[in-house]
Amino acid sequence: MKNFKPYYAVIFTSTQTEDTKGYTKMAEKMEALAKQQKGYLGIESAKNKVGITVSYWESLKAIKNWKANTEHLFAQQKGREQWYNWYNVRICKVEREYEFKLD
Amino acid sequence: MKNFKPYYAVIFTSTQTEDTKGYTKMAEKMEALAKQQKGYLGIESAKNKVGITVSYWESLKAIKNWKANTEHLFAQQKGREQWYNWYNVRICKVEREYEFKLD
Repeated sequence: MKNFKPYYAVIFTSTQTEDTKGYTKMAEKMEALAKQQKGYLGIESAKNKVGITVSYWESLKAIKNWKANTEHLFAQQKGREQWYNWYNVRICKVEREYEFKLD
Repeated sequence: MKNFKPYYAVIFTSTQTEDTKGYTKMAEKMEALAKQQKGYLGIESAKNKVGITVSYWESLKAIKNWKANTEHLFAQQKGREQWYNWYNVRICKVEREYEFKLD
């Protein structure tokens, strides 16, 4: 844990409506766009009944900028109007981390 | 955001080996056991290529206790020996949260 530099995670959990038209394309577009943002560190996604997407960022400012990105704002609006019946966003400070890799 | 009380999230991301024998049963057992722990707040899981499980806790102490739980230690060991070829654990402080619900 020496020299561990805290960073931030956005935990986005959601359930979708039945109207998935255009969703996959938009999700791919937003992921590609997120990767271009300043302070972006990574993203992980999985979806069954609930969808979980966790994105990682250098700072709260980077998260704020991404949230306010014009194309992202449009996608958020579309999400509320069409794709999601529920979502939750948690802004988190990553304080510790450890990893296991099989030899 | 008034009166928001910070709590903790453990982001567990993983990829599995091909040897999944006993995994589902153990995962269910561990989820049931986690729910009985002091300071447990909730859990969310999804799995495709990567598995993401996020559990929520009142305090770092609750997380530490859960990590050190005897049955959980056994499951962790089995996970490293058999089920996972990679995993990552991030301990996070949830600082802000917002929710959307369709009317």
